[in-house]
Amino acid sequence: MRNLLSIEDLSAQEIVDLLDLAQSFETVQQRDVPKVPALRGKTIVLAFFEDSTRTRTSFDLAARRLSADLVNFSAGSSALKKGESLRDTIETIDAMGINAIVIRHASSGVPRQITRWTNASVINAGDGWHQHPTQALLDAYTIRKRIGSLAGKRIVISGDIKHSRVARSNVQAFAKLGAMITLVAPKTLLPPTLNGWPVTVSANLDEALEGSDVMYLLRIQHERMGQSLLPSLREYRTKYGLTTERANRLGSDCVIMHPGPMNRGVEIDPEVVDDPRVAVLEQVAAGVSVRMAVLFKTLGPGQFDRSEESDPVDRADSRSASEGGQT
Amino acid sequence: MRNLLSIEDLSAQEIVDLLDLAQSFETVQQRDVPKVPALRGKTIVLAFFEDSTRTRTSFDLAARRLSADLVNFSAGSSALKKGESLRDTIETIDAMGINAIVIRHASSGVPRQITRWTNASVINAGDGWHQHPTQALLDAYTIRKRIGSLAGKRIVISGDIKHSRVARSNVQAFAKLGAMITLVAPKTLLPPTLNGWPVTVSANLDEALEGSDVMYLLRIQHERMGQSLLPSLREYRTKYGLTTERANRLGSDCVIMHPGPMNRGVEIDPEVVDDPRVAVLEQVAAGVSVRMAVLFKTLGPGQFDRSEESDPVDRADSRSASEGGQT
Amino acid sequence: MRNLLSIEDLSAQEIVDLLDLAQSFETVQQRDVPKVPALRGKTIVLAFFEDSTRTRTSFDLAARRLSADLVNFSAGSSALKKGESLRDTIETIDAMGINAIVIRHASSGVPRQITRWTNASVINAGDGWHQHPTQALLDAYTIRKRIGSLAGKRIVISGDIKHSRVARSNVQAFAKLGAMITLVAPKTLLPPTLNGWPVTVSANLDEALEGSDVMYLLRIQHERMGQSLLPSLREYRTKYGLTTERANRLGSDCVIMHPGPMNRGVEIDPEVVDDPRVAVLEQVAAGVSVRMAVLFKTLGPGQFDRSEESDPVDRADSRSASEGGQT
Repeated sequence: MRNLLSIEDLSAQEIVDLLDLAQSFETVQQRDVPKVPALRGKTIVLAFFEDSTRTRTSFDLAARRLSADLVNFSAGSSALKKGESLRDTIETIDAMGINAIVIRHASSGVPRQITRWTNASVINAGDGWHQHPTQALLDAYTIRKRIGSLAGKRIVISGDIKHSRVARSNVQAFAKLGAMITLVAPKTLLPPTLNGWPVTVSANLDEALEGSDVMYLLRIQHERMGQSLLPSLREYRTKYGLTTERANRLGSDCVIMHPGPMNRGVEIDPEVVDDPRVAVLEQVAAGVSVRMAVLFKTLGPGQFDRSEESDPVDRADSRSASEGGQT
Repeated sequence: MRNLLSIEDLSAQEIVDLLDLAQSFETVQQRDVPKVPALRGKTIVLAFFEDSTRTRTSFDLAARRLSADLVNFSAGSSALKKGESLRDTIETIDAMGINAIVIRHASSGVPRQITRWTNASVINAGDGWHQHPTQALLDAYTIRKRIGSLAGKRIVISGDIKHSRVARSNVQAFAKLGAMITLVAPKTLLPPTLNGWPVTVSANLDEALEGSDVMYLLRIQHERMGQSLLPSLREYRTKYGLTTERANRLGSDCVIMHPGPMNRGVEIDPEVVDDPRVAVLEQVAAGVSVRMAVLFKTLGPGQFDRSEESDPVDRADSRSASEGGQT
Repeated sequence: MRNLLSIEDLSAQEIVDLLDLAQSFETVQQRDVPKVPALRGKTIVLAFFEDSTRTRTSFDLAARRLSADLVNFSAGSSALKKGESLRDTIETIDAMGINAIVIRHASSGVPRQITRWTNASVINAGDGWHQHPTQALLDAYTIRKRIGSLAGKRIVISGDIKHSRVARSNVQAFAKLGAMITLVAPKTLLPPTLNGWPVTVSANLDEALEGSDVMYLLRIQHERMGQSLLPSLREYRTKYGLTTERANRLGSDCVIMHPGPMNRGVEIDPEVVDDPRVAVLEQVAAGVSVRMAVLFKTLGPGQFDRSEESDPVDRADSRSASEGGQT
């Protein structure tokens, strides 16, 4: 695996392998010194052309725990302001000798596009409405950890599907792992066509949530209001929000998820946030393990001739031995 | 010691212990490679919700010299802009598995408040007008290094006491260490009540500075002028500034201090700045040693079962031995 | 060598030594773990008072590959906004115990000026229209790697000479290494006097490029248009741009260079950019090696008693051995 651009590119088995690897890295993080030298000497560029605290910090920590070097590249300080093309920017970074570019960009397709201009691995950290593959992986990881294999599980995704890269990535990942997915949203927040989406659609959250194993809430962007795509926030809450009343009707093992940050009182009632079924902080924690797995899989030693027997964390650790005292 | 929120929480002995530890770290910094592996694998988040070059850089260097990993979190790039609550932000950072949050915030009490939402150590790097405990420690360190124990020393603090977290922290620290403190300020720049402050108040700097061991000048914020709290800057200088004439009347061992950056020509005359009695750059240097001590005390190995005999720098160094080649 | 302020301060031999050292570091970067511990424990401050992606990232990577600690200092977050003087800022950074300041500033002469206020090494990363010495070194490195020694080579530099620190630095470096330089520019973009510049001037690019070994194009700043210094961009391209037609008349070994980012369709035609004679990305790659050499030369171990026999990369590597397991 050289790049991670879209969940579409992964088979079910590849997803499961990544989740297993993330599980190994979860144990690394419980050590007194939660680091492995696996990516020592590798340089990872965080190229975030859109602001992000959660995702950037999560990749940052994942890279450090693998002992990689990190370079922050922000749009603000960039030569792009001087009118440099994205291609020139990427080729320039590439010429400096780096190993991976983690990119977030407002335009769909940019991560795949830049693979033509660099030999480095490209990791998609969110592109437009298109994909956010590490979010899908961390969400699948969280569900598996809570209630086991996703096969046959009933997952409801509610909210602004149309403008959501999280929805697109998660539907693909959950479906590949065998889950049954129901989307619940007002028509204005659904894509014009759902051809090829392995989902059922419902306009009635109260019906959809009956018997669900996972209730996944998307964030309502306030700016959608000005675009007449939404009724009032109050009406949205009444029809599509996870109110206390609705939460009471969810099963005791139902996993309540949200990519964050939450709009309390809109897609979720403030009282529900502290419900033990809410897995939001477990999602955040899983993010670091999953991103360690993705970085190791794309950049780590012996990815191409690895034997099935060896433990990835052993290999990650062993790097230090062969390199002796050089630090 | 898990957190450092306020000088109020420290006993005199705890302050002295921190200063002694800082002294050990001062020697570490004189080594050819001024680093110890004490906090290797620990992750420290610098969460500065107010801009600061000095304090941020000082914590940054302190953390690196202890081999910790650092994550910068700036308000600008934060999800707070999307309306996320401070609680969500802190819980999110916490879920990623970090060991300490160094926080600066415009509102008093925020550092103590966030201890409810995280298992990480919380270090107050300045909150509103309330506290700036590492500033008080570095100032005490500087005085002790110049003229020995603070017990019985006469310290004058002059300037905008009312809006100054430095004044609040320093008064507490200096008093706990036995100094006698005189505040000099116009009434508009004094707190409405000084009940419980272990200080004498004077409106006459010329009287107050007679026989003083330390002359501590606070920074005049220019924005106070617009709030009619101050006469003209010229008048302020005449009544409360350390003019050349006043500096000539200070003793030859008197320590002249300022938290920086200085307004030359307002609280201090430009000619006085280069006087060898001015300790401003020693304060800056002490800042790194003191912050190393605070981070080590809150995060370092064996803090809770440490024997009194072992040298902290030995313990800081020894970490490497027990961890062998793993880097 | 303690500072690198201007190419003027270097002899031809010193330039050659730096290029040779850069060549050693180029091989380091081809290793599996492209790092040496040469500057472990050294702290380098990147003080960029003007935005720059390329140069900042290049210094950042160079410092990491030498295992130095890096502190970013940006004008935005600086106490300078509070009215602190540059001198106070530099003295404050210096007091924290740092080893080098890499500075970019809009005013000519600032890097030399700050050497009075710090014991740290000062590296000029571009000051006003004055100097950009590491750019000159990386350009000389690129030419030498492509076509051997610069002695006797014919180099054409075309564009906005007047406002270009790249032009000033490169003319000095290339001339010291024995090249023959021709400047081509409209009169409005030439300095008022060229007394003391070791160059020939021409207004006719078509004549100047005949038989040239290097064609060096400078970036046209669009803001010059508003200052009536330039005719239209179209006219500039016609008279001074490297059009496809002109590129066809250059020799097959001619090196086409540009400091980046390029204005396609102004100083260079879009079709020419992909010509294999264009060395722009090699310039970028050379930048990291050259900056490693500069940092090592100013900060590295044994710079003052080094024996001519020992290989610098050996010395860079050997630092780890003498320091054992301490990390």
